[in-house]
Amino acid sequence: VKVAVLGVGLIGGSIGLAARARLDAEVAGFDPDGANLERGLEVGALDRSAGSVADAVSGAELVFCAAPVRALGPLVAAALASSDPEAAVTDVGSTKRELLAGMAEADGTERFIGGHPLAGAETAGVQNARADLFEGARWYLTPTGNASGAHYDRVQRAIAELGARPQAIDAEAHDRMMATVSHLPHVLANVLVQEAAAALAESSDRLPEVGPSFRDSARIAGANPAIWADIFATNRDAVAGEIDAVVRRLAEAAELIRAGDPDAVGAWHAGALESRRALLESELAGGPLCQLRVSVQDQPGAVAEIALALGRQNVNIVDMALYPAADARSGGMSLWIAGQAEAERAAAVVGELGHAVAVLGGES
Amino acid sequence: VKVAVLGVGLIGGSIGLAARARLDAEVAGFDPDGANLERGLEVGALDRSAGSVADAVSGAELVFCAAPVRALGPLVAAALASSDPEAAVTDVGSTKRELLAGMAEADGTERFIGGHPLAGAETAGVQNARADLFEGARWYLTPTGNASGAHYDRVQRAIAELGARPQAIDAEAHDRMMATVSHLPHVLANVLVQEAAAALAESSDRLPEVGPSFRDSARIAGANPAIWADIFATNRDAVAGEIDAVVRRLAEAAELIRAGDPDAVGAWHAGALESRRALLESELAGGPLCQLRVSVQDQPGAVAEIALALGRQNVNIVDMALYPAADARSGGMSLWIAGQAEAERAAAVVGELGHAVAVLGGES
Repeated sequence: VKVAVLGVGLIGGSIGLAARARLDAEVAGFDPDGANLERGLEVGALDRSAGSVADAVSGAELVFCAAPVRALGPLVAAALASSDPEAAVTDVGSTKRELLAGMAEADGTERFIGGHPLAGAETAGVQNARADLFEGARWYLTPTGNASGAHYDRVQRAIAELGARPQAIDAEAHDRMMATVSHLPHVLANVLVQEAAAALAESSDRLPEVGPSFRDSARIAGANPAIWADIFATNRDAVAGEIDAVVRRLAEAAELIRAGDPDAVGAWHAGALESRRALLESELAGGPLCQLRVSVQDQPGAVAEIALALGRQNVNIVDMALYPAADARSGGMSLWIAGQAEAERAAAVVGELGHAVAVLGGES
Repeated sequence: VKVAVLGVGLIGGSIGLAARARLDAEVAGFDPDGANLERGLEVGALDRSAGSVADAVSGAELVFCAAPVRALGPLVAAALASSDPEAAVTDVGSTKRELLAGMAEADGTERFIGGHPLAGAETAGVQNARADLFEGARWYLTPTGNASGAHYDRVQRAIAELGARPQAIDAEAHDRMMATVSHLPHVLANVLVQEAAAALAESSDRLPEVGPSFRDSARIAGANPAIWADIFATNRDAVAGEIDAVVRRLAEAAELIRAGDPDAVGAWHAGALESRRALLESELAGGPLCQLRVSVQDQPGAVAEIALALGRQNVNIVDMALYPAADARSGGMSLWIAGQAEAERAAAVVGELGHAVAVLGGES
């Protein structure tokens, strides 16, 4: 099978690597930055570097457009215009509705199947590409009403062979869902750090220390500005709608907290815990997510020791957070493990290493 | 020196352990739950279990009130009333203004120095107590205008000897700062998960998978409802004020995103990155926080291997996040290291293990 990759970054490069390894594909790549093509050849993501879109897609049965969201419209149009009349064309953009709306009238759109793999970030570069980037990853496909079934099938099979789990979804539903689970958290993180920086600068000359709660909440603030400006621009109604909804919820929360009834506030807070569990557990096959709280005496050594011991017992760590003391050596550590029984098993392993450990069933 | 600990949980127990080990103190403890006293004796946090507050504080030069925020008012009053006329009394509550306001007219308040160690959580139990819980931790002290200098000095020295870094701060400024760096992030996490649960339940029968961004943002949602209801209740004006400020910022963000100018949105997003860096770097001695992005093939083994290799080289991991693929074995991993040079050194160590690694200078 002949595959073309247009845009050779982390995602495009990983598609190339995986297609060569798993589909036995012959992969041609094009990128406006020649250095990416050279690196793509070096890391084995491409069989051939092409001088143009037309050169890359020539003879290809399957074309992946892996450019930033802003560049996808013209790129997909060029791919459709210059590819073989039977070639299937797909993309990997983080938003889908605007791209599809913009190409509704163009020629060959029945051969285009929009896509969005939940893996990596577009800027991280082809040097970080790997053949198993999509292993087990959700890969959304957004076929339109006039998409050809044969082309959908070809894209869907190829994606599954790359190791991903394809799922069809309406483009509008996709963008609304992403607004909630991805774009909204980024907006909240941005607003939190900007409010904190302003409030703290006002009250003191020197910014105070922030704790692990703040670090977790702020981690994604300002991530990859170039990519995110495009994402917000191409999903503005859904994102703004989610912000409006959060503003209403915050106004209610402020009223509740101002009223000062601890029972009512406690019920609100406990409701959040239930929502969190429902959301995080929906993705886990192993049962409810349990938290292990571990007290750690000497951080660098202990993290390794604990992870190693759990790895040896084949316990999987779904998520991890460190709460270092200011000496940055001792401190606390939380591990999230799927399933109560698995968590208890993990606690026993950690306890045998001499660390104080508690299992909190789904809390915190 | 004789020390009394009123409330023998994680914090009280750790104070007992540290006071015995580092101050060579004789520690008497009281807790309304007799099981906590027994466990406190077992783990070596106490020399003696007392049957009442008066029994515990008898002869003590220093009294720590380590009960939940809601119970502190009466407990501090009882400690002041029954302790020796020269005893210093302090507490460990997460909010300070309301406690101090409630005792303004009581007898003996010149001997009370409010306190708040940034370590642990009140519910985690005496079984997790450890002598080094406060090692390097910030410990705020909130003396009032009529506090005795001698008593402040005694509390401050003892806290430093426990390993903490005491810092005096006005109670109102303390609560305002906590509203920003701790209480506000909890409110935002609560609102995010409640909005997500509502929005996603509306659009589909089955909740979709959420990614690592969502997990980071939602991690503290609904944490310890009992404690948090008290914290919100005793800091309601400051927390509600921060919520109001965030509502204004969100309304601006919604307007900006709706307008759809990618350059303006990009500038707003980049501003958040700067704020985040300023906030997170203020606490780090080692220089700007750098992110290492690592591609991991087999998660349980690789986390251990990487942490172990870095520990061997004495590289300190300030923070860590895992981005597992849905197979929960492979995936990405981010490590935050203080200082560019240290991060490059860490990257070399990780690279030698055969993992793809990139250093992102302060970016996320």
